[in-house]
Amino acid sequence: MIKVVNPNTTESMTRSIEASARRAVGPGTSVIAVSPAMGPVSIESHYDEALSVPGLLTEITGGASADGYVIACFGDPGLDAAREVASGPVVGIAEAAMRAATYLGRSFTVVTTLARTTGRAQELVDRYGVRPYCRNVRACDVPVLELETDPGARGRIVAECRAALETDGAEVIVLGCAGMADLCTALTAELGVPVVDGVAAAVAAVEGLLRLGLGTSRSGEYAPPPSKPYQGALAHFGLADPR
Amino acid sequence: MIKVVNPNTTESMTRSIEASARRAVGPGTSVIAVSPAMGPVSIESHYDEALSVPGLLTEITGGASADGYVIACFGDPGLDAAREVASGPVVGIAEAAMRAATYLGRSFTVVTTLARTTGRAQELVDRYGVRPYCRNVRACDVPVLELETDPGARGRIVAECRAALETDGAEVIVLGCAGMADLCTALTAELGVPVVDGVAAAVAAVEGLLRLGLGTSRSGEYAPPPSKPYQGALAHFGLADPR
Amino acid sequence: MIKVVNPNTTESMTRSIEASARRAVGPGTSVIAVSPAMGPVSIESHYDEALSVPGLLTEITGGASADGYVIACFGDPGLDAAREVASGPVVGIAEAAMRAATYLGRSFTVVTTLARTTGRAQELVDRYGVRPYCRNVRACDVPVLELETDPGARGRIVAECRAALETDGAEVIVLGCAGMADLCTALTAELGVPVVDGVAAAVAAVEGLLRLGLGTSRSGEYAPPPSKPYQGALAHFGLADPR
Amino acid sequence: MIKVVNPNTTESMTRSIEASARRAVGPGTSVIAVSPAMGPVSIESHYDEALSVPGLLTEITGGASADGYVIACFGDPGLDAAREVASGPVVGIAEAAMRAATYLGRSFTVVTTLARTTGRAQELVDRYGVRPYCRNVRACDVPVLELETDPGARGRIVAECRAALETDGAEVIVLGCAGMADLCTALTAELGVPVVDGVAAAVAAVEGLLRLGLGTSRSGEYAPPPSKPYQGALAHFGLADPR
Amino acid sequence: MIKVVNPNTTESMTRSIEASARRAVGPGTSVIAVSPAMGPVSIESHYDEALSVPGLLTEITGGASADGYVIACFGDPGLDAAREVASGPVVGIAEAAMRAATYLGRSFTVVTTLARTTGRAQELVDRYGVRPYCRNVRACDVPVLELETDPGARGRIVAECRAALETDGAEVIVLGCAGMADLCTALTAELGVPVVDGVAAAVAAVEGLLRLGLGTSRSGEYAPPPSKPYQGALAHFGLADPR
Amino acid sequence: MIKVVNPNTTESMTRSIEASARRAVGPGTSVIAVSPAMGPVSIESHYDEALSVPGLLTEITGGASADGYVIACFGDPGLDAAREVASGPVVGIAEAAMRAATYLGRSFTVVTTLARTTGRAQELVDRYGVRPYCRNVRACDVPVLELETDPGARGRIVAECRAALETDGAEVIVLGCAGMADLCTALTAELGVPVVDGVAAAVAAVEGLLRLGLGTSRSGEYAPPPSKPYQGALAHFGLADPR
Repeated sequence: MIKVVNPNTTESMTRSIEASARRAVGPGTSVIAVSPAMGPVSIESHYDEALSVPGLLTEITGGASADGYVIACFGDPGLDAAREVASGPVVGIAEAAMRAATYLGRSFTVVTTLARTTGRAQELVDRYGVRPYCRNVRACDVPVLELETDPGARGRIVAECRAALETDGAEVIVLGCAGMADLCTALTAELGVPVVDGVAAAVAAVEGLLRLGLGTSRSGEYAPPPSKPYQGALAHFGLADPR
Repeated sequence: MIKVVNPNTTESMTRSIEASARRAVGPGTSVIAVSPAMGPVSIESHYDEALSVPGLLTEITGGASADGYVIACFGDPGLDAAREVASGPVVGIAEAAMRAATYLGRSFTVVTTLARTTGRAQELVDRYGVRPYCRNVRACDVPVLELETDPGARGRIVAECRAALETDGAEVIVLGCAGMADLCTALTAELGVPVVDGVAAAVAAVEGLLRLGLGTSRSGEYAPPPSKPYQGALAHFGLADPR
Repeated sequence: MIKVVNPNTTESMTRSIEASARRAVGPGTSVIAVSPAMGPVSIESHYDEALSVPGLLTEITGGASADGYVIACFGDPGLDAAREVASGPVVGIAEAAMRAATYLGRSFTVVTTLARTTGRAQELVDRYGVRPYCRNVRACDVPVLELETDPGARGRIVAECRAALETDGAEVIVLGCAGMADLCTALTAELGVPVVDGVAAAVAAVEGLLRLGLGTSRSGEYAPPPSKPYQGALAHFGLADPR
Repeated sequence: MIKVVNPNTTESMTRSIEASARRAVGPGTSVIAVSPAMGPVSIESHYDEALSVPGLLTEITGGASADGYVIACFGDPGLDAAREVASGPVVGIAEAAMRAATYLGRSFTVVTTLARTTGRAQELVDRYGVRPYCRNVRACDVPVLELETDPGARGRIVAECRAALETDGAEVIVLGCAGMADLCTALTAELGVPVVDGVAAAVAAVEGLLRLGLGTSRSGEYAPPPSKPYQGALAHFGLADPR
Repeated sequence: MIKVVNPNTTESMTRSIEASARRAVGPGTSVIAVSPAMGPVSIESHYDEALSVPGLLTEITGGASADGYVIACFGDPGLDAAREVASGPVVGIAEAAMRAATYLGRSFTVVTTLARTTGRAQELVDRYGVRPYCRNVRACDVPVLELETDPGARGRIVAECRAALETDGAEVIVLGCAGMADLCTALTAELGVPVVDGVAAAVAAVEGLLRLGLGTSRSGEYAPPPSKPYQGALAHFGLADPR
Repeated sequence: MIKVVNPNTTESMTRSIEASARRAVGPGTSVIAVSPAMGPVSIESHYDEALSVPGLLTEITGGASADGYVIACFGDPGLDAAREVASGPVVGIAEAAMRAATYLGRSFTVVTTLARTTGRAQELVDRYGVRPYCRNVRACDVPVLELETDPGARGRIVAECRAALETDGAEVIVLGCAGMADLCTALTAELGVPVVDGVAAAVAAVEGLLRLGLGTSRSGEYAPPPSKPYQGALAHFGLADPR
């Protein structure tokens, strides 16, 4: 079973993510998507991202055990921490989307929500080593929770995608928000180039790793963290010693 | 159906690659592995690699049509050319292995056959943007076709893997030759860290792309090549104009 | 007034950090050091680091207002988030130490606590653009809270510093943990090369920015984050709307 | 004697290349230019490039022996393979042109034929380490074989050169196709900045290496490849064992 | 005492630099600014920069001894040489300005004088590792000595600053000439983003290093140079042997 | 006529450089080597290098006019300034040697004189974009002027070359000092790999540029510098206005 953690607390978005995720796996692989009990209702700043991580980690370490995990926010929040404590492989949607894009063309542009988050996306472009492939990171200036409610949202996303193809010369589009997952198929048809949704890409990547019997290395940086006390409101995050 | 092309002409190696590839796919996905009719019996130099490509391209454009393709040589020969002419997505085993490794740890070492091929592997490390993850490319100095016949081959591979863990501080091992695919499971068990076989990783990547409905972008660099005459012994490579 | 936030909850370490910080400022500048009420007792993993950030942010946004802020953990946790919400400039001790080191020589080595944290330090080397200067990141394998209690700790730190000079050819040493701040002067004398403590370097950097009248840009990535609800145990992190 | 191999099979282009090459050498150095018997009539895709290499290698290893070799296609096809088997130094026109350009200014723009080949040129910019010098790679959208037949070709090339100077701020122009060699002198006069033709640059580089007594290192990556059988239509590529 | 060396010989500019420098230090730190007796009246080319260095070095090694030094030209001329021979730490205004800017935002643009000097600024962007932060280097096309005399100079500087914010998306402005130091406060107020003057940033950096007791490493590259004769007009540059 | 400027004032070394340079040109090309009247007797520090530049520039702008110029010191001092004012192309021996080495193998090691100069060589490795080719910069710890007088010098150079081949895995050796030029042929024979002397490589590069009719771009960074007064001992460096 693959567990997809939407790190914000908006349940309707989690349901939409789950639907996309289920379309991406083969027969015999089950998927659930969950939201943490604590954290921001959407992630649109470094502050939001930082505060989404404790709730996200609760979903990684607690609840029904899963074989593998997906972090369904394009900033890949808490990815390193999750790898240290998860029982199976963990993949972020930004890394999966960007890496899938490199199989499909020599250049891609990311189309995301707010301009203020493009810096984080650029940072991930460098971390994942896809700088030579990335032509641009474009923002459509639609807040995350208005992606489904704002009737103009789809038009602004399409406009940025077209600018990516015509101005940037991108050959592939990467959708820069988990809340855009349900647009992926229609955009691919409309634009005539591959459009990559990170939720689907990450779920497929985890399913592949599981089939190959591969999990996070327990040697070095992602070894289980030293056990220790946590204080105050986070006291329950202390990990049992023998792992 | 996923077609795995072993770009050398050694049929016994192709059969072994096919067995590894089949273990990596889910129910409902079929896999075949083929060798070209022309080219070198093994690929151990730039010269061999260059001469493997025409035969490889024949397998991509001809024979039974496939949904997606894998190039099963760690130099990823002919990858760009194959993407231009294949009917579905194409993934090389070096790119798939290196990218899978980045999901599993913060560092990997490649263990390959002959020292003279490490330059090509290093070049691919840069092309695929995984330089910060790659600790080393090690050669066990076993020629490709002796991997199965030389009784000392396995020992030398294990010795390089151990050096990768202890000297390089690598957290993950990437096997640098399609001929090592059958060692992967045993090595994972013996070494206690993830060992990535590119054949399995590439087949899983193609299966994922197919499930997501994603293929090579037909816009830009991988658009179908202009039709034109080819002279001499390669005259039959001319592509039909309407594709 | 400069507020130094030790993101772990160990008060004795906070007092030692405060002493170092006070030695680094000029007449007329006051300094206080604080620990959050919630979080880990020490930071030795990505998991610890992620869980230190909510408490750290509480100290940035709450309590007595300060003119500028220092984050006193060598992983620079929460730095981007803190910059979004702080009332004045924020500097991390890793960035300040690494940048100060580049004024003093053409190469430095970081000497830190546990080997598992060297990956984070390497990541910061890249983020801060000091890769050409950084010869190595060495671990002395002393847990953070044993730096003061383990009588062998100092010897192991000195041994790594000497290896940095002799094996790495480093010209400057950067201490990779706020808990090492009190060793800085003695090590400089003993080793004969500059030894940079990040706490002092960061406090000096903030003091300089304040004297120059410079604060975080409110345009672009570090603009105040959008106001929104936070759920569950983190509900009180919601920011007042007009900032 | 320096042998210039035009890797396409269009003899008229080979003659033009030969004329340019002869103007670039000093007294006492002879030059011949040849085309392979097999391969594409022009090189405008990765597919063409891959299929040009066997014929190219035949010209490197067979026929009258030469002291040094030039590969006269801006994608530098088969360069590594040629170095393994050639009797003397081998230089590609892209590497020679880009490196010569760095002696003449702090920035250059490449002006080439079709847009679909700019990706390969960009890849070579990275391989040859001239990224900081390269402002742009521009395509004039003239197919290779129409360079001489299309009366509008020259105008479109000049227009891209002028855009390189005015929009990109380039200080030097690099011509991105061997078929443009005969335009070089006139363009230099017309544009008032240095215009580098790779054929001339490569021939001059080989002549220089020969005068210095320098050839390809036979240690490591370019050592003679292991001898082995080649199958099918490429069987005659097998190299004699003692080299 | 901190000595600020303006490497050009224009005394009125030196007085203006001194005023800016004095505003940047705390109580108890004295500052003087000096010009060399030999060299160019302004620095607007590599030629000028090269010829400013001997006079600059005379000011570093001679006259009243200082605790630390600032080189007040945005090309940071002679920085490495000065570090070898100065009695205390040496900081260039370009490095200090660029590094300070990285504390204040995720992106900056440099606004400098003549277009021909932007290449040197770009080179320093790479040397100081701030490439990911630097959006652009813009020239206002005002010669150095006309900054104060040309009534249109201020307007052209402001225009480039506004283009930096609106076109480049820069979050911070770095002033690219010591002659602009006196504009810094007014520009910060006018533009609403941090504007960094390198003279102030460098003086603050040196003051911080002095408070921390840190000086140039005497091990390795910046060790005192070997003593030897200098010929001709530079004979008096010979350094006394025992240092 | 090609003028080779040895930027130090040691005439015996200049004569040896001239002999090497003459062996590198073809019939019909004349070469002279000169030393400046002012400057250090050898260049072994940033201080020496900075002080060599005024004398070097006198040789570039004065005396008998030449068609092209070589700067014969491995730090390539004053290269940008020389390009601004020289009447023909200017090539440094470090750039020429490193670029020639990339034609001959996939890796090289520089063997130079004193360890303190390796930092400058590393900086040039980055400037010239040959980082992926450069395995190491090794020092034999022989001062420049003892290269010919110290009977042990040759042995120490050979020992570093052997370490380059065996430990670094370098395929090509680059000699890192103009004073080693006369060893080049013997070392090539002794070591069995190409050994590149920068004096010969630079002279050959200039000869090639001259035959191709290529000179420094007069547009942009290397345009003639603005005319202006120079003060004091350098007053005679003022350039005539119309160039």
